[in-house]
Amino acid sequence: MPDASTGQADEHYVVGVDYGTLSGRAVVVRVSDGAELGTAVHAYPHAVLERSLPAHLAGSERRLPPEWALQVPEDYREVLKVAVPAALAASGVDPDRVIGIATDFTACTMVPTLGDGTPLNEVDGLQDRPHAYVKLWKHHAAQGQADRINQLARDRGEPWLPRYGGLISSEWEFAKGLQLFEEDRELYDRMEHWVEAADWIVWQLCGDYVRNACTAGYKGQLQTFDGQDAAYPSTAFLGELADGFEAFVADKVEHPIGQLGERAGTLTAEAAGWTGLPEGIAVAVGNVDAHVSAPAAQAVGAGQMVAIMGTSTCHVMSAEVLREVPGMCGVVDGGIVEGLWGYEAGQSGVGDIFGWFVDHGVPASYTEAAAAAGESVHEHLTRLAGEQEIGEHGLVALDWHSGNRSVLVDHELSGLVVGQTLATRAEDVYRALLEATAFGTRVIVETFRDSGVPVEEFIVAGGLQKNALLMQIYADVTRLPLSVIDSDQGPALGSAIHAAVAAGAYDDVPAAAKQMGKVRRHVFVPDEARAAAYDELFEQYVALHDHFGRATTTMRRLKAIRRDAVARRVAATEGSR
Amino acid sequence: MPDASTGQADEHYVVGVDYGTLSGRAVVVRVSDGAELGTAVHAYPHAVLERSLPAHLAGSERRLPPEWALQVPEDYREVLKVAVPAALAASGVDPDRVIGIATDFTACTMVPTLGDGTPLNEVDGLQDRPHAYVKLWKHHAAQGQADRINQLARDRGEPWLPRYGGLISSEWEFAKGLQLFEEDRELYDRMEHWVEAADWIVWQLCGDYVRNACTAGYKGQLQTFDGQDAAYPSTAFLGELADGFEAFVADKVEHPIGQLGERAGTLTAEAAGWTGLPEGIAVAVGNVDAHVSAPAAQAVGAGQMVAIMGTSTCHVMSAEVLREVPGMCGVVDGGIVEGLWGYEAGQSGVGDIFGWFVDHGVPASYTEAAAAAGESVHEHLTRLAGEQEIGEHGLVALDWHSGNRSVLVDHELSGLVVGQTLATRAEDVYRALLEATAFGTRVIVETFRDSGVPVEEFIVAGGLQKNALLMQIYADVTRLPLSVIDSDQGPALGSAIHAAVAAGAYDDVPAAAKQMGKVRRHVFVPDEARAAAYDELFEQYVALHDHFGRATTTMRRLKAIRRDAVARRVAATEGSR
Repeated sequence: MPDASTGQADEHYVVGVDYGTLSGRAVVVRVSDGAELGTAVHAYPHAVLERSLPAHLAGSERRLPPEWALQVPEDYREVLKVAVPAALAASGVDPDRVIGIATDFTACTMVPTLGDGTPLNEVDGLQDRPHAYVKLWKHHAAQGQADRINQLARDRGEPWLPRYGGLISSEWEFAKGLQLFEEDRELYDRMEHWVEAADWIVWQLCGDYVRNACTAGYKGQLQTFDGQDAAYPSTAFLGELADGFEAFVADKVEHPIGQLGERAGTLTAEAAGWTGLPEGIAVAVGNVDAHVSAPAAQAVGAGQMVAIMGTSTCHVMSAEVLREVPGMCGVVDGGIVEGLWGYEAGQSGVGDIFGWFVDHGVPASYTEAAAAAGESVHEHLTRLAGEQEIGEHGLVALDWHSGNRSVLVDHELSGLVVGQTLATRAEDVYRALLEATAFGTRVIVETFRDSGVPVEEFIVAGGLQKNALLMQIYADVTRLPLSVIDSDQGPALGSAIHAAVAAGAYDDVPAAAKQMGKVRRHVFVPDEARAAAYDELFEQYVALHDHFGRATTTMRRLKAIRRDAVARRVAATEGSR
Repeated sequence: MPDASTGQADEHYVVGVDYGTLSGRAVVVRVSDGAELGTAVHAYPHAVLERSLPAHLAGSERRLPPEWALQVPEDYREVLKVAVPAALAASGVDPDRVIGIATDFTACTMVPTLGDGTPLNEVDGLQDRPHAYVKLWKHHAAQGQADRINQLARDRGEPWLPRYGGLISSEWEFAKGLQLFEEDRELYDRMEHWVEAADWIVWQLCGDYVRNACTAGYKGQLQTFDGQDAAYPSTAFLGELADGFEAFVADKVEHPIGQLGERAGTLTAEAAGWTGLPEGIAVAVGNVDAHVSAPAAQAVGAGQMVAIMGTSTCHVMSAEVLREVPGMCGVVDGGIVEGLWGYEAGQSGVGDIFGWFVDHGVPASYTEAAAAAGESVHEHLTRLAGEQEIGEHGLVALDWHSGNRSVLVDHELSGLVVGQTLATRAEDVYRALLEATAFGTRVIVETFRDSGVPVEEFIVAGGLQKNALLMQIYADVTRLPLSVIDSDQGPALGSAIHAAVAAGAYDDVPAAAKQMGKVRRHVFVPDEARAAAYDELFEQYVALHDHFGRATTTMRRLKAIRRDAVARRVAATEGSR
């Protein structure tokens, strides 16, 4: 073990690289104590391709259908070539003292490759084929395929379905793979591996394809039942989905699994050239941005729920027990740390609801007052809302503007605000929306508890931790002590922790997390009087939650009416041409 | 009858005066055809006293409690002295050709007077007593008294309660009178008449106190049962309300009734001096602004519902039959025109909801775009909303931001919007609010029909008639042909019609309305395809209406929680002083 106190030449370092939706961030971290010594960000030159494949890639510009979201694999390599050397330079660390590198990635983000890992969009003659590119997590054009997967799984009583809260997402490996199979069969036949980007980038670093246990379980539906070997959905199931698709797992998906924190391989000479790191250092098994945040926040024990709160919230928590929790996103053996069951849940909309309200529901007088006070509109509304007594706004909202993932698993749900009067002001609605997301979290926490998976502590990572009013609301509403990660780059730090373990500096991820993770414990503690006041509002939230989420079809009907109306307008517009 | 075609010296004219909340408007009208020849408005110098009695009235400034709203009677006289001569001058009409004057007023607006009509605030030594002033219709400080009146009426099974949809308002004569009795007994004892301002202004004009049938019925609870004489609430009821209050009707309220369109008396020499009109011309019995609009729109027949649409909507309609319609404001024999049962219903918030949304829910980008396009924000949102297909916004709202009068009679209800997503924009919510008020109207129309009081036509008066999108929505939602009054000063025109009848120029109000009223018939007609599309949204509205208005206590609980929270804050603030 390195000596944390000396700061001398015998210190070792690791590099963590966090691949987000629009950029990659590298951070150089001291192994002994997790100190973050240098960081650099590189934005993907192609960002997200949502409207078209540009001409410089596809020969001529090629339009994409709605709901598509593609990326370009070379952009990921560029992060290694640009951000890692820049972070190294910023840190002042001697590259020879670096002992390992690890990465985390958005998921489920899929790369179709040849047998040697070459992405299909880099194969001559395939550059103009949309399906040859990376399907980013938010590529939502496979909803039809997902619907059929879910219907068939329900009809057949597939045992893996309850492991995912009863619903497979259109974002995941099988829906996206089935779309590729059905829409570009020639390309599907050329594809030799259907690879998570989380694993593809590791392959670029070490030259070996190792499939990480996290995405294989959460996104690839790899599950173990009754002590049997882990298995994917069966060939019988796949064949019933689509003729010819029965060999999907065997031909494109199945591959040896690496556990989180294990070494996938060592850095190749080529990757050493890209990064400026020594050839031969440890390269860790791939990981997911949300899940890797848990060790960064020292939250690797059973009952420590980590909420990564940004535009949406992802909840990850480990437990000793396997339970089927209604509405969770998934439960995977070793999905967060090896040896425990990793649970994931989610709220589809959180920060994006607040942002939507600020952009579309706040009058000019507030934006002007905020500017005059030198505050952002969020800060201004937060300050005004913070002056209120609980319940003074007279409102309750449902936080389903992007649908509801946990625990209702219904993306046809929508937002609601009740209680408005002529005296209602923007800060009232803003606070009600903050509270609604806290109530949504409480429903998730209580559902886990009621399913036999207790939640003992709530640890927040992600951008929203900066809003102290929001944090206090969460503590009071959930009656849980609330800790916050003490790093602005939690996922990259989490990756660095995995790199240290892969390099052998620590025995396992929990040991490394204890030294290198950073958390401010119990920064917000529940106040009983406030918690009791919220109980009254929560009672109303639950009544609305169950009425609109379970008892009635109002929201579903409104979405159907909306779709019909849009279709009428499109038909009318085309008829008038 | 005058000859409408000549325009010669044998034409006669009348003056109508409309007393609104903040000003009085006089209009000079030709008797033969209702042509409006001159108009003038005079704002009340004291407007509405809501925070205090000013020092120049009360000696020193005197604070008023919350929910009070007072006016100064002399302001009403000033309208006669300023606006009537100005309108005459503007019209170019020879005052000697004017044969009558009539007035309409806000209601229930109450003046406490001596036996000769002197308002108590004009009595020496009483100028500093808040209860000596006029209690304007929107004085809401008698809610406690109204609650007790309603509870006792229910307990005793008073037969008049169903004539008011099951609820007496805090705005009406008995609640306001009981407040005066309980809070300033000395003043109550000095008071000899408790007079509707609608009748007090007539008293000023002709020197005689005649109580009009409209306010006596709608606001004073004068009702006839089974062919017996019309009667007010009984002494037994009043005595049970408060010891000593049993003589309220006999001592302060009861007075001979005048029917609408009858002559109350003739113009006194003093009033002739104020107005510049000839002494001795006819002065009509007083009337109410909403009800007087019906003849102005030629809507005096059974089944013609007139909606006066402004900040709120008042619906008035005559019918041959007496029925107890759930949630109506009242039904009064001759309440709109003599010989028919006059029904009144209402929506507590309409234009004020749209105004609130524009002020508090529309972002700067819209106010800037509206300004750039030379539109008001209302016009801008209306134009954007008008480009949508029905249902395209995916929203349904409840229009209860000011509570619900008809048909739920519950002011603890509040507003709701359901269906919001991150794609929801201001014009979507705006349109949903427009539609919600139309759905509220449809509920009223259907409730009247289901009670055996058919609605055949819908005629709109008031400022909102200018919004063509709103009008078309109402026609489509109600499947009723929609006519609009063809005058910007409907109430004053309605008063002029009553003046013509009181002067003997026409046999009755319907005959005068036919010649002098102005309506554009069936300007908006329902379209079956659009009506069918609205049916789908209305089905969701009704589900929400019945859930929140009848099945659950959510909104009532939110108001109670809000009151508790405000009380906590007040206590905390005082505790910290």
